[in-house]
Parts: sequence; structure tokens; C-alpha cells
Amino acid sequence: MKFEKYFTMEEADAIEYAKERLDFFEADEELTCKEIGDGNLNYIFKVDSVNREKSVIIKQSGPVARISDEFKLSPDRNRIEYEILKFQRELAAELVPKVYNYDPIMNCTAMEDLSDHVIMRTEMINHKKFKKFADDITTFMVNTLLLTSDVCMEHKEKKGFVKNFINPELCEISEDLVYTEPFSDVNNRNDVFRPNASWVKENIYLDEALKLETAKLKFEFMNNAQSLIHGDLHTGSIFIKEDSTKVIDPEFAFYGPMGYDIGNVIANLIFAWVNADAFGKDEQKNWLEETIAKVIDLFKEKFLKLWDKRATEYTAKYKGFKEYYLNTVLRDTAGVTGLEGIRRIVGIAHVKDITIIEDEERRMRAERLCMTLSKKFIMRRNELKTGRDFINIIKETEKNL
Amino acid sequence: MKFEKYFTMEEADAIEYAKERLDFFEADEELTCKEIGDGNLNYIFKVDSVNREKSVIIKQSGPVARISDEFKLSPDRNRIEYEILKFQRELAAELVPKVYNYDPIMNCTAMEDLSDHVIMRTEMINHKKFKKFADDITTFMVNTLLLTSDVCMEHKEKKGFVKNFINPELCEISEDLVYTEPFSDVNNRNDVFRPNASWVKENIYLDEALKLETAKLKFEFMNNAQSLIHGDLHTGSIFIKEDSTKVIDPEFAFYGPMGYDIGNVIANLIFAWVNADAFGKDEQKNWLEETIAKVIDLFKEKFLKLWDKRATEYTAKYKGFKEYYLNTVLRDTAGVTGLEGIRRIVGIAHVKDITIIEDEERRMRAERLCMTLSKKFIMRRNELKTGRDFINIIKETEKNL
Repeated sequence: MKFEKYFTMEEADAIEYAKERLDFFEADEELTCKEIGDGNLNYIFKVDSVNREKSVIIKQSGPVARISDEFKLSPDRNRIEYEILKFQRELAAELVPKVYNYDPIMNCTAMEDLSDHVIMRTEMINHKKFKKFADDITTFMVNTLLLTSDVCMEHKEKKGFVKNFINPELCEISEDLVYTEPFSDVNNRNDVFRPNASWVKENIYLDEALKLETAKLKFEFMNNAQSLIHGDLHTGSIFIKEDSTKVIDPEFAFYGPMGYDIGNVIANLIFAWVNADAFGKDEQKNWLEETIAKVIDLFKEKFLKLWDKRATEYTAKYKGFKEYYLNTVLRDTAGVTGLEGIRRIVGIAHVKDITIIEDEERRMRAERLCMTLSKKFIMRRNELKTGRDFINIIKETEKNL
Repeated sequence: MKFEKYFTMEEADAIEYAKERLDFFEADEELTCKEIGDGNLNYIFKVDSVNREKSVIIKQSGPVARISDEFKLSPDRNRIEYEILKFQRELAAELVPKVYNYDPIMNCTAMEDLSDHVIMRTEMINHKKFKKFADDITTFMVNTLLLTSDVCMEHKEKKGFVKNFINPELCEISEDLVYTEPFSDVNNRNDVFRPNASWVKENIYLDEALKLETAKLKFEFMNNAQSLIHGDLHTGSIFIKEDSTKVIDPEFAFYGPMGYDIGNVIANLIFAWVNADAFGKDEQKNWLEETIAKVIDLFKEKFLKLWDKRATEYTAKYKGFKEYYLNTVLRDTAGVTGLEGIRRIVGIAHVKDITIIEDEERRMRAERLCMTLSKKFIMRRNELKTGRDFINIIKETEKNL
């Protein structure tokens, strides 16, 4: 009877749950459990067999999001996450963890244990390089984004997906924390590094041309039901090791602009680059520049190839249309790169790549570098069409700061 | 027990239904009924009291749309229509008929009888003028479109509306018949007036630049969840008399681009203008030109005023944003004006304004005039910002044809 009414589990409960509810371990198997969550919204239980190499992750949504008591989130996000993981695994295979079970009463999902992987942000801070990353993440993005769009999907079926993955509460978090508060000096929960306070005021809060562009991008985010996007594709949502990349945590998923995912990846590589810059890691910077350019260029290449192979929409085959469409995706990508690049410095949710820089001068410079190039990504988003164009914004800003 | 299982009603059934199911007539009142539908998707029963001025309309969805056996439509469109009419009446009051009852089993809606009004398309063909029309229709559009957008509506609530009014089957009809088939000489159900067959081939089917723009507009229609649009706002969906305008038939409603509604109104005024041109009715042409310009200019004026009064979105107040937003609406309006202007001539669903022109030469000219100006609306949609700009396209085409 224990798991027939929702409660927030402790480690011992998770062991019991694994034994009773999952067809995964032997009945008499000795198990251990550790809660390993460091995210903001969920509890993550890792349940391990004591005597053999077998483990599972049980991810439970709390009744209230951890990020702050202000964000009250319905547990429907857990259903969304489960369905999305299953679907993305069909689309992108090995780049997404296996999911075993979803329990709508306990609001938890059982999935593959990825403990042999490390969160990518951690590895970036350790200045590690991953040769396969650009190739893996572009395959993930092209497959999950293009194949769920009206280009490739029967339109009535796609509308059913739009309906099923309407995600009001999680979208609200992004609308507020990515698109609104970082650009406003009133009614915000911003957390500005004090030495940059007046810089932020002058260069962000008072820049009306910038704010106008952020409003356009916000409405694009709210209204453009283009693809089933991941919705939170930063380096903290990616598990990585030498020969494997896994994208996790799609609870923010909904039908939105493709560029939101791609821009998040680029911006978070830029945070890693800014970190490498602050610590004088030139080799890491070079690798990151190459990787950023490759993510853009490989995305384009694979996108066009998959379009030719899988487009079913009649008008998608008109001369010039796929190039036009791809350009709008790149424009949105650049815009979101800039938004994420600013909101993770000005807004409530900072990234460790930057907060780990202890030297005040260096952190000041790192933040300004990041915010200055981010503004350019937003303001010049119509011009950026290649990996080289993206890198030029970064290098040009580095040189002139 | 009679109405506890769905069947397609006859006139006698509608009388019985009115007595048993509606709290509208007296129990022993003598009633008459006539089926007056001339649309493609529904049966319209007008039930009248014999001895007093009291009547009601019962609109029933057939199990299969009448337009053709190919279009199988779920009766959910009746629920959508009922909910939309109720909601639009809150937003635009007298411009929308009263609805009394919705019956999900019999798939029918009881609503106000508007027999003292006439379908606007009929009145246009009779070359009648309506002084209040531009004012009424712009109030209807500004209220129903702006107030249901993210500019004015709480975003989580709006997403609930998006979900509730996902309308895959009716949208598919528009996607096929408005955006695709009229521009394709293969796989279509087009119905081209024979004397214009080679003109259409050369100027529509073979115009690749035009087709590219129609693909962009199609994706805008499928993806831009901007406002709760009517979705079929032609002059056959408007009941009119000297002092009153009523917008009916919102069964195509869904969250789409505002410009789709406004463009439909403009295009159908242009059909009336082309008709007046063919019959040498200069006074009617002048009134229609004034009306088209007024619809654009009054829409803009009321839109900006209502925005100032009712916008709740924080970023909507940024300097320059409302003008930017309005320009995108005008751009979409011009694009849809052109699409509708072509599809009603080339595609399966013609308008009487044009088919009523019996003289072959005159009809040929009327159609070419309409298609030529429509192409300009599509190709130059970024430049058209005022009523005068819209009229210039029409006058310039008239002069040069």
C-alpha cells in the first residue's frame, strides 16, 4: 500500500520502491541508495546492487520545486519528461538514456544509471576536451528538432503533440528568468556580481535597443510552435564521457523554436570558453572555439541532409525554402545564445563556469566579456550564418575589451 | 430517449428537439422549421413560433462534412464553435450572436436567429453599402485578436486556451486549400476557369518566387500561436444589416496569426470590388476602396489604443515594441490577402462575387485583376503599412492590366 499515495521519498523508501515496483532487481537482492540530486526541481535516487554491477536511477518530482518556494510546479512535468525521453530515444537512440518506468502517483521515473558519465559542466570547468561532442550534440539536435517539426511530421499528428506537451509552468520560468527579469532593474530576482552592478545597469538595464530585441525574442519563444524542443539544453543537462554523450532532463520540453536549444548549447560552451580564458587555458579555448564553430556547421550540414531525406511537407521542397528556414533557425540560435549569455550572469541562476572564478578582477572581466559578446549575438542575429560568423563575434569582443 | 444518441436531424426532429431540449418556447407552442444551410459543413435549422415573433437557430454538425466525402471531420468542431462564440461575445459583445445551448451528443448548438440580417457576400453582390461595417469589423478583430494574445493575456492561461482550441482537422483544410493546392499543378483539387488555365499555369504554378513566399506563410499559419483567430472570416461568415454586423461560424478557430483574419476580410472586400468593377458600379467601387483603407487604418488605431489600455505583458511596454508587433500583423495581413485572393479563384472553393460574372471576357479580366494584385500583396507584404498602401496595390494593378 505504501506507494499508492504520493509522498516525498527518502533513500530507504527508494530501495523499497525499486524492489516492489520495478522489475529490475532480484527480490532478495541487497541494495544501497544515495540521493545525488543537485538540480533544483527533483530528487535523484541512485539505487545500487551491493553484490553486482547493476543500478538504476529513480527521479522523483517534489510537490514544490526546489529552486525556490515561489515556483510551485505541477508534477505533470514528470509525465512530460518520461514521454519525451522515450520519444527522443526513438529519434536519437544512444544519445538519450533508457527509461524503464513512469509512476504517475509517486511522480517518479526509473531510468538508466549514467554514473560512468560526468555532468559536462563539471568537465568543462576541469578543462577537459571531448572529441565526439560536436558530432553527438548536432545529431541529437537535428534529429529531435527537425523530425518533430511540420517539415517532417504529419501536421495533425504534430498538433496532437503540441497539445500533449503544452507546458505552462516550466515555460513561465523561462519566460521570466531568461527573457524578462535579466533586462529589468525593477521586479526582478536578479543576482548581480557587485563589482559589475553599475556596468549592468548602464549596459543592460538602460539599453532600450537591446530590450526591444529581447521582447521580440520572448514573443518568438511564446508563440513559435516549431519543434518539440528540450527547453533546457545547457551543459548541466548533458552527461558525457570520452566516447558517449547523453542528454537528460527534458522536463522543460514543449513546442518552441529550434534555436532555443541550439542557442543554449552555444551559450554554455561560451561560458566554458570564458572560464578557460580567465584561467589562461589557451588549448581549452582553442578546442572550445573549434567546437562552437563545428556545432553550428555540423548542425547545418546534417539539417540539410536530413531535410532532403525526411521532409514530407510538400511546400518544404520549394526551391530556396530549406535555406530560408535554416537561416531563421540560425537567427533564433544567435538570439538565444545572447539571452542565455546574459541571464546566467545577471539573473538568478548563475553558472559555475563563472562563479568559480575567485579573483575579482578576472571575474569582472569574464562577465563583461560574456555580456558584451552576448549583446552582439542578440543585436546582430540576422547576420550570423556560419560557425565562423559565431566565432568572429567572440574573438572580436575578446580583442576589443 | 430520442436525442440520447446522435443522428442527423430532419426538420421535424429539430422542432421536437427545440421543445424537449431548449428552455426557449412554451410546451404547447406551435412551431415550424426550415433547414436553411448553404454552407459546407453543417445543417442549419431555423425553428419559428407560428403565433409570435420568436425563433431560434439549431446548428448541427453532420458526421461527415458536406464539402466533399474526402473531408471527414470530427464533431469536436461544434464544441469549439460553441465555446468560441461564448468567449467572443464576452470580448466583442453585440458583434457576435448569442448562444443558448450546446449538446455534445447531438453535436448541435442553439443560437440567436439572425434572419433579419443578410449574409454580407449576398449584399456585396447586390452592390449594397454598409456605413458601419469598417467600424464594426475592426472592433471585432481588435478585441478578439489582441485580447487573446500574450500581449494582454496571462501566459499560462493563454497556453490552456491554445491547448483547448487545437483544431487539427479544420486547420488541415486551410493548410491544403489555402496554402498548398492553389499553387501546385499536381495533386490538387483546383477548379480553374478554363479561359484562364494557361494564365494560371504561367503566372501561378510556374512562379517559383511566389511559391517560396507561400511556403513561408504556410509555416507561419501552422506555427505562430499568436491569437485565438476566427479562422474563416470571409463575407460569408458575416451577417449584416444597416445598423448591425454579426460574425458567425468560428468553427475554424484556433491559435494562429492575427493577419489570417484581417487578410480574409480584406481579400473578400476585394472580391466585392472586382465584382463591382466587372459590372461597372463605380460608386460601389469607391465605397469598397474607402472601406478597405478604413479597415486597415481603424484596425491600427484601435489596436494601438487597446494595447495601451490592456497590455499586461511587461516587455510589451518597451519602446518601439507595439509598432514592431503591429507591423508584423500588417505584413501577415497583406500575405493572407494575397493567398485568399488567389485560392478563391484557382482552388476548389470559389466565391460567388466572381462566379456570378457570366460574360466570359469580363470574368477573365476580373480573375486576372484579382490574381495579379494578390501576387503583389504576397510579394510586397513587408512594405504595406497603411490603408493607402493597400489601396495603391489595387489601383496600380487596375491601371496596368
